[in-house]
Amino acid sequence: MAKKSLRIGLIGYGFMGRAHSNAYAKVGNFFDSEYQLVRQAVCARDEEKARQFASRWGYASVETDWRKLIARDDIDLIDIAVPNNLHAEMAIAAAKAGKMILCEKPLAMNSKEAEKMVAAVEKAKVPNMVWYNYRRCPAVVLAKQLIDEGRLGKIFHYRANFLQDWTISADLPQGGAALWRLDVKAAGSGVTGDLLAHCIDTALWLNGGIKDVNAMTETFIKQRKHQLTGKVEKVGIDDACAFLCHFNNGSLGLFESTRYARGHKALYTFEINGEHASIKWDLHDLHRLQWFDHKDEGKLRGWRSIHVSDGDHPYCGKWWVPGLQLGYEHSFVHQVVEFLQGLESGKPARPSFRDGLATDYVVDAVLKSAKGHRWEKVKQVKG
Amino acid sequence: MAKKSLRIGLIGYGFMGRAHSNAYAKVGNFFDSEYQLVRQAVCARDEEKARQFASRWGYASVETDWRKLIARDDIDLIDIAVPNNLHAEMAIAAAKAGKMILCEKPLAMNSKEAEKMVAAVEKAKVPNMVWYNYRRCPAVVLAKQLIDEGRLGKIFHYRANFLQDWTISADLPQGGAALWRLDVKAAGSGVTGDLLAHCIDTALWLNGGIKDVNAMTETFIKQRKHQLTGKVEKVGIDDACAFLCHFNNGSLGLFESTRYARGHKALYTFEINGEHASIKWDLHDLHRLQWFDHKDEGKLRGWRSIHVSDGDHPYCGKWWVPGLQLGYEHSFVHQVVEFLQGLESGKPARPSFRDGLATDYVVDAVLKSAKGHRWEKVKQVKG
Amino acid sequence: MAKKSLRIGLIGYGFMGRAHSNAYAKVGNFFDSEYQLVRQAVCARDEEKARQFASRWGYASVETDWRKLIARDDIDLIDIAVPNNLHAEMAIAAAKAGKMILCEKPLAMNSKEAEKMVAAVEKAKVPNMVWYNYRRCPAVVLAKQLIDEGRLGKIFHYRANFLQDWTISADLPQGGAALWRLDVKAAGSGVTGDLLAHCIDTALWLNGGIKDVNAMTETFIKQRKHQLTGKVEKVGIDDACAFLCHFNNGSLGLFESTRYARGHKALYTFEINGEHASIKWDLHDLHRLQWFDHKDEGKLRGWRSIHVSDGDHPYCGKWWVPGLQLGYEHSFVHQVVEFLQGLESGKPARPSFRDGLATDYVVDAVLKSAKGHRWEKVKQVKG
Amino acid sequence: MAKKSLRIGLIGYGFMGRAHSNAYAKVGNFFDSEYQLVRQAVCARDEEKARQFASRWGYASVETDWRKLIARDDIDLIDIAVPNNLHAEMAIAAAKAGKMILCEKPLAMNSKEAEKMVAAVEKAKVPNMVWYNYRRCPAVVLAKQLIDEGRLGKIFHYRANFLQDWTISADLPQGGAALWRLDVKAAGSGVTGDLLAHCIDTALWLNGGIKDVNAMTETFIKQRKHQLTGKVEKVGIDDACAFLCHFNNGSLGLFESTRYARGHKALYTFEINGEHASIKWDLHDLHRLQWFDHKDEGKLRGWRSIHVSDGDHPYCGKWWVPGLQLGYEHSFVHQVVEFLQGLESGKPARPSFRDGLATDYVVDAVLKSAKGHRWEKVKQVKG
Repeated sequence: MAKKSLRIGLIGYGFMGRAHSNAYAKVGNFFDSEYQLVRQAVCARDEEKARQFASRWGYASVETDWRKLIARDDIDLIDIAVPNNLHAEMAIAAAKAGKMILCEKPLAMNSKEAEKMVAAVEKAKVPNMVWYNYRRCPAVVLAKQLIDEGRLGKIFHYRANFLQDWTISADLPQGGAALWRLDVKAAGSGVTGDLLAHCIDTALWLNGGIKDVNAMTETFIKQRKHQLTGKVEKVGIDDACAFLCHFNNGSLGLFESTRYARGHKALYTFEINGEHASIKWDLHDLHRLQWFDHKDEGKLRGWRSIHVSDGDHPYCGKWWVPGLQLGYEHSFVHQVVEFLQGLESGKPARPSFRDGLATDYVVDAVLKSAKGHRWEKVKQVKG
Repeated sequence: MAKKSLRIGLIGYGFMGRAHSNAYAKVGNFFDSEYQLVRQAVCARDEEKARQFASRWGYASVETDWRKLIARDDIDLIDIAVPNNLHAEMAIAAAKAGKMILCEKPLAMNSKEAEKMVAAVEKAKVPNMVWYNYRRCPAVVLAKQLIDEGRLGKIFHYRANFLQDWTISADLPQGGAALWRLDVKAAGSGVTGDLLAHCIDTALWLNGGIKDVNAMTETFIKQRKHQLTGKVEKVGIDDACAFLCHFNNGSLGLFESTRYARGHKALYTFEINGEHASIKWDLHDLHRLQWFDHKDEGKLRGWRSIHVSDGDHPYCGKWWVPGLQLGYEHSFVHQVVEFLQGLESGKPARPSFRDGLATDYVVDAVLKSAKGHRWEKVKQVKG
Repeated sequence: MAKKSLRIGLIGYGFMGRAHSNAYAKVGNFFDSEYQLVRQAVCARDEEKARQFASRWGYASVETDWRKLIARDDIDLIDIAVPNNLHAEMAIAAAKAGKMILCEKPLAMNSKEAEKMVAAVEKAKVPNMVWYNYRRCPAVVLAKQLIDEGRLGKIFHYRANFLQDWTISADLPQGGAALWRLDVKAAGSGVTGDLLAHCIDTALWLNGGIKDVNAMTETFIKQRKHQLTGKVEKVGIDDACAFLCHFNNGSLGLFESTRYARGHKALYTFEINGEHASIKWDLHDLHRLQWFDHKDEGKLRGWRSIHVSDGDHPYCGKWWVPGLQLGYEHSFVHQVVEFLQGLESGKPARPSFRDGLATDYVVDAVLKSAKGHRWEKVKQVKG
Repeated sequence: MAKKSLRIGLIGYGFMGRAHSNAYAKVGNFFDSEYQLVRQAVCARDEEKARQFASRWGYASVETDWRKLIARDDIDLIDIAVPNNLHAEMAIAAAKAGKMILCEKPLAMNSKEAEKMVAAVEKAKVPNMVWYNYRRCPAVVLAKQLIDEGRLGKIFHYRANFLQDWTISADLPQGGAALWRLDVKAAGSGVTGDLLAHCIDTALWLNGGIKDVNAMTETFIKQRKHQLTGKVEKVGIDDACAFLCHFNNGSLGLFESTRYARGHKALYTFEINGEHASIKWDLHDLHRLQWFDHKDEGKLRGWRSIHVSDGDHPYCGKWWVPGLQLGYEHSFVHQVVEFLQGLESGKPARPSFRDGLATDYVVDAVLKSAKGHRWEKVKQVKG
């Protein structure tokens, strides 16, 4: 049977543009689908660089104006892989044009924007997804299965960290191509929207909604040279953020993120403590899940380090053989798999824009709480 | 040269009475001192049990009334190893009688009581110390040395957890001999005074004073049968507590404790992130220190797992040989070593009652913050 | 500048055929080269399956007779990814036809065959390489760099294990598609040629030649049903093998491999102890290197766990960003990178067929020693 | 009921003298027994040092001639804690005098001597034990329980290492008080009798007898200054030793020991692979046992790290509470516990001298095999 073509228009050729392109290129080698992904066009302002990217990654054409890309009839899906301040406008335009949309995280600069994006895709009834890729690490999916099977029982605690150390030097500038994450105008916030958003998305998926939050943020280095203006400017982002929260299920949450934790490159960890069992995971060894089961015989209880690479582990049977580990990039492949299965089954893939909005509600409440030095209720998504 | 006798009167024969007695018995086998510790008397209400304890641990005599013990001329030092609600009265009486005092932690039920205790010992000018024994694990002392040597540079983050799982069952009663820690009248608070107090004491020692805190507490199981009354009664303690804080040095703190973290027996961990280096420690492997040094050559940077058992590691040269690990009980021996060196040098051992008060100020602020749902300033100790 | 085409003819579509194809597909996305790899043809006896494989992996054509494939003018490189008993004939034919050759490991059924293969490729002067992919894990390359920089000093010990547990069941048959590794006629030997060959190849690369060996082998399950004949037949392979050896540099070696080590899926580990430093690596966490440096300050010495994912780690700068780990499949990509760089630089990539022969000499000596119950000299490769 | 006195005469005040004395001092504080240990006398040639030791450890008297000590009526038990070359003469004399004997390991310089010692104690019918203390780490005893319960099923593999790094410097002399282990005349052999003897003792206990061995040894530094003669002399001991073996139960063994493994202080590890489960243990974290159980549900299988500190773990209920780890010295306490229970129950404690002889048979075969470069049968103990 001939496959249906799904023609992709990618906006952005940075780090995420590469990660997504790699996923598009690989998914068909390992996973079956009714759909054939076609790398149809890549769009970026710098035409020469866009051409180089297209050549390297097999995109058939190049655009320099994203509005033209969206207007093209030969594009089915728009992939938004640009800084946060551009997500809303692009996504809303793409929705109006009837395109499917995959949007980088966080969904928007704030929940106001995100609400409009959700309204747009839902009105247009276009398939949509946010690239919270860590949901799709096999070990994290295994955690989700264990929770859904009720093995943890009542949940008491959820804690997550995302620790990095790459902005400790005061000489590091802000803004511009590689450093837009330090520029509040492009990023909206610092670690909260960048790193904690991942932690929050996973948490909402694994442990349900968050009721209220109590946060503190800090900007350790107050001024940095701006790469676009050449001037030393006030730093508007948060360098670090931590918050306490209550989940709707009664469990307590503790979240922390920073780019000033010397020794940690990208250490996203979470731990869940339930009545019967506990789970830990860590991005630096993403192919492992730590599992403690109180139902194990007393004298033999201990944390199990599960090497998530067996045929009966999520996705793993499609890759190599037991003991041979997957890496970071596979999470993106799996997210494409989910998206395609959503198209095939009619049961939309998650996290949808609506899920992304839920995370943005938490992000907003966290930032507001930190600013106001008080507990804030979190707005809940409807439906 | 003949040694000076230091005659100990121990009040309490529970878990801590054993831990202290073991320290008194061993210290002279491994460490040199001008003082000869003499286990002179143990005091407890149950005379028969006290006699058994005295026989097992080599105490020369028994008392059943602690006031009589304190009144004895042949006792130099009173060791208070009883539930928290008894500390203040005993300590103040002992101070008035001119006895040296070693008191179990937390120093008191609250900082009001603790202030009176500090006043009493300082007025009486009696040597005093609180049994925050984890300060004296060799790996923790090594951490202290590294910080004092300036190797971490400016500190950005301090985080500590103390996770246990022994009260998850709703069938566990509260109160009485083994379970006084669940009875708010005997313990004053739950995990905050019991477990977080350890974390706070270490933090104040390693990272200086805490400015303000923002806490949440939870009591997961609201009612438990009380062993003394036989009735189901409201549980007054906190089962879990987490708080955000700012240290005086500008670093951010994150603390959490619970008795509902399935899979963790007594997992006290802390991590400190500085500009140049980071440190991690964990009570479940207390003989190791994790060390990350950014000054290491770039491609060879990594967390080092230091097996703290070498001759040049704190205290270790007095024990066995490299590679042969110490355990939990040695922390108490080392605290006795510190106390004796304090007597010899005239530079009082730490943590003193005044240090214990500093921790109680934080504990009080944490509990107040949790109750009031807002940030609370922490009262600072003077002098 | 236009790239030179390098047209690949792959023989075999099994597990290794997939691993190689994935490497061919990805290498150009991440690494620059003068060469453009073209997946020209895949060859297998089952035409339908070959077509499916070609479709999935983008091979332009299909062959069912490997001799025809080799005879084709539009093929530059033959990749041999079939059971061991077919390597020699195919490779020699391909060499005669002037094709470049990439051959799966071990190079041959025994060193006699391997010698002929070496003679053939060297006579034909065709580029050649053996797929000992673990050499090309970034952490292993880092180990090689450290050794070459002289950081370990004189080497005292080399030990390696390759532990699996997938053949413990007596119900597992031997022979046929998925289980040819249990059939001595297809595999030549058991764990010695399959797993220890990897360990030996790495060791020869990192630590130089092996002088003599002293081995024992065991076949725990003596008879298994043969999938091709349907009969219960004697098992001719070794289930486990261990050997002692002396390296030419005076260090002692200890190697072990088995498929009966419950709990280990594919645990290839090695450790090297030198005068100044030691190294450990482990395939189950292949993105880490353990490093102990005696030159570190005494009280801070410890094993460092290096997360090999930084920009200055081998190959890593071409992939993602620090902290985001690579996986198993990347080792194959890197081997293709090396091969292409060999073509460009004129300095042939390693391990060459001659290197593969060196490993086969050790394998032969090991098997002979085990059979004869005595030490055996290892034949050394010339040149 | 009054306890029976057991009056100890200790010969030697070195490292082991301290470890034993500590065990004698502590055992009564934590374990119940009919016996009251009395530190009656310590014997050493240097009277002044012996007096200091007696004072520190509470020995009631001092001897400088071990024959006089053995002759004393007020001594019930002779503890031999001196270099290996003195064990046989002392033990045989003590047996003739009807004393109970605890002897440091290895039992003797060789099995010839050991046979005489066994004959002596068995003829005299005196309780006897060898200080192979690692048997009595709680985690090792737990391993023994699991094996005895049949949980591992048929055993396929046993591997053990004992790695140290303290003799790498060529400037280290041999002989004399602290360095008698480097002097073949005092030690009999190097790592084989010192370190591998521990590994062998544990293996015989856990996995039964060894049938044959095939060994290699190495002396990396051929000459060292001798502290007693002041001259540079040939080094007679083995610096490193590795051997292959077959156990009587059909499993394969692999043992290695060295003092040239940079980064390892005293890393004794063993691993056992059975049909159904596997076990790992490691002296550097002696309070943990690694356990893999194939009977666990497939997708949740993983190595469990058991923190051996619970009330139902061997010996642990007598010490502290769950999560609070024991250390090195406790293994000696437990061995005294076993000895006393042997006296009480009439079922002699193990390892007896006869068990020590079994280890010496293996040691002898290993050294003979290394010298002869061939497999050697191991003599089996009778009875």
